[in-house]
Amino acid sequence: MNYKQSNPTRLYFGAGSIENLKAEIKEAKNVLLTYGKGSVKKQGLYDEVLDILKKNEKNVFELSGIKPNPDITSVYEGIDICKKQDIDLILAIGGGSVIDCSKIIAIGSKYDGDMWQRIKNKQFDLTEKIKLGTILTNSATSSENNYYAVISNEKETLKLGTAFWPVAHPDFSILDPKYTVSLPLAPTVEGVADISSHLMETYFHGQDTENAIVKIVDAELEALIKGIVTVGPKLVHDLSNLEYRETVMFLASQGLSTRLRHVVNGDWACHAMEHALSAVYDIPHGGGLAVLTPNWMDYIAPKRTPKLKQMAINIFGVSSDGKTDIQIATEGIEAFRKFLSDIGAPKTLGYYGIEKSSVDTLVEKALGGGEQIGLMCPLNADAVKEIITASL
Amino acid sequence: MNYKQSNPTRLYFGAGSIENLKAEIKEAKNVLLTYGKGSVKKQGLYDEVLDILKKNEKNVFELSGIKPNPDITSVYEGIDICKKQDIDLILAIGGGSVIDCSKIIAIGSKYDGDMWQRIKNKQFDLTEKIKLGTILTNSATSSENNYYAVISNEKETLKLGTAFWPVAHPDFSILDPKYTVSLPLAPTVEGVADISSHLMETYFHGQDTENAIVKIVDAELEALIKGIVTVGPKLVHDLSNLEYRETVMFLASQGLSTRLRHVVNGDWACHAMEHALSAVYDIPHGGGLAVLTPNWMDYIAPKRTPKLKQMAINIFGVSSDGKTDIQIATEGIEAFRKFLSDIGAPKTLGYYGIEKSSVDTLVEKALGGGEQIGLMCPLNADAVKEIITASL
Repeated sequence: MNYKQSNPTRLYFGAGSIENLKAEIKEAKNVLLTYGKGSVKKQGLYDEVLDILKKNEKNVFELSGIKPNPDITSVYEGIDICKKQDIDLILAIGGGSVIDCSKIIAIGSKYDGDMWQRIKNKQFDLTEKIKLGTILTNSATSSENNYYAVISNEKETLKLGTAFWPVAHPDFSILDPKYTVSLPLAPTVEGVADISSHLMETYFHGQDTENAIVKIVDAELEALIKGIVTVGPKLVHDLSNLEYRETVMFLASQGLSTRLRHVVNGDWACHAMEHALSAVYDIPHGGGLAVLTPNWMDYIAPKRTPKLKQMAINIFGVSSDGKTDIQIATEGIEAFRKFLSDIGAPKTLGYYGIEKSSVDTLVEKALGGGEQIGLMCPLNADAVKEIITASL
Repeated sequence: MNYKQSNPTRLYFGAGSIENLKAEIKEAKNVLLTYGKGSVKKQGLYDEVLDILKKNEKNVFELSGIKPNPDITSVYEGIDICKKQDIDLILAIGGGSVIDCSKIIAIGSKYDGDMWQRIKNKQFDLTEKIKLGTILTNSATSSENNYYAVISNEKETLKLGTAFWPVAHPDFSILDPKYTVSLPLAPTVEGVADISSHLMETYFHGQDTENAIVKIVDAELEALIKGIVTVGPKLVHDLSNLEYRETVMFLASQGLSTRLRHVVNGDWACHAMEHALSAVYDIPHGGGLAVLTPNWMDYIAPKRTPKLKQMAINIFGVSSDGKTDIQIATEGIEAFRKFLSDIGAPKTLGYYGIEKSSVDTLVEKALGGGEQIGLMCPLNADAVKEIITASL
């Protein structure tokens, strides 16, 4: 068992954690606020933050309109402001898209070359960035608590993720569930689906499940997955419930944090396929994952039965009495489908207008020029095609 | 639920992780090696490290002879070397004692005042230190992966722990189980007892166990505790087993890491009592904890039955059929006692020559001038006396 682990992000979790902002902005002169389409203005957080920045005599600049599946053009725009205005703190207010985009801006502002080319070349070796803080308004990606970022290039219809890149950790993140209470139903559902997917992708690692460390990590992951499948459906039926929002915020921050994620290496085939969907059709990431994941489970069930059986029993409490392993595994998949149905996640790619004619393009994008995707259960082009076709 | 979390330590876990040393020492010119009584020389690690340092043209200085329950005099000695020799990297090779001592040296070398006074005054606000790396040879305290340190002052017969002190995180830690294989039986047993205690102290937090986040954290802690009570007895009967050493190393690094530890606030009364024992009698920390903890459980069982019942069922698999809650709790405590017995931990303070005549002194030291200790179940002087007396 070999792994590397580090998480320098200062996470301030809970009600009132905005009070830590003042100390964190102390050294900064020129602050770039980054945010999305303006929901942060409606809910009042924008005014609250601006007030703190102004009272502390900061020069404030803004980059707004960062989209879900953020495009590299927003990155270029942000880098331009940072360089021109000598920005020394980027404050990202939003969810994973705003934070991911801000990570690349923060690093790119300390670099003279082209960030898209570096990401395309998988060069994650830059070690400097502008100080980056985040205030989370959408519990989903863990971006507030890890060093990953995903960025799209609409012109090239590509959506690419970064890998091991320590400098991309936010310096601090403020996680107050009250800032997520006004999040509408659709992104809430997508967030819950995304969290469950991150945990499942990690859970479906390729490592020996008889290894004692793996057993412990599996048990921890099972606790987290049980958490999201329990609280997720409650939240979508009671969106303003602060306690549910708090639990989901906790689970999101742990879901793809670099702790458990790095002890085992997950499968991540569903993410590779979903990135292809989002790149071509600009659909919500969590929605795409919700459609693909159970169909991926169906496909791998005969090939990786023991792990699906473990999921069925340990997470969903499926009884094993008088059943074959594959029957148990199948009941587990059905229980996972029920959870996705309970939160009202989409069930087919048709929901997003994706048709059979685009399957070959999606398969090609998902493979990204390689022979296969997925670590626990490697999928070749035929397998990817079968799963995407089953998801239509 | 409010908490702060951050862990910047770069943890390199697994076989061969020493290969990361070269990159970590790159910027350093003058390195201070800190270690204990010389077991690192016998097992070959000292030569291996010295060879790497010499090949990379570092000036090497040494502070050896750091004792278990390290004394503040070693800290002063280390600070003196660091200031005189312009040390820019401290490399601690050893277990918790060497690492704890090195943390205070690293911080104290950037400060002109007296470190003992600051620790006594609970002033954990210094923010600078010399870069600190660790190579672990004794899996126990988590010091390699957190910002705590415990230091003694023999003259004052005091043993004090530090609290929230972000700068005290090691910059990097190398965790290769092979460096722990030659550890003799006694410190191995004490390490396993210490790990189980850290996890138990955290598990016995005072928070609402019906809270969804607390439930998840409890389940994670149960997975870790089940891990140590399973692998601990196996290891003490097969000391050279690398797989068991690896699992215990993993559990040690997680046991008192700042992750779960900070989501909930543990009880820590047993640690307060044990620090009194170690301060007055210089006994092994893990040994003292092994004696005290089950007697503490006996004392709190009637007052905090539900949590002990939860431990009994979820960790030790005690059946609840036809039993009262206190019966279930008591069976859980017996199962924990059996684990301690299986690893061969001491059962009485008499084992260390501690007699009834010193109880009042120990009670006073444990309370440290306060009215009570323990968060989940606060103990006053009478309660502390009862538990220590039961432990004699």
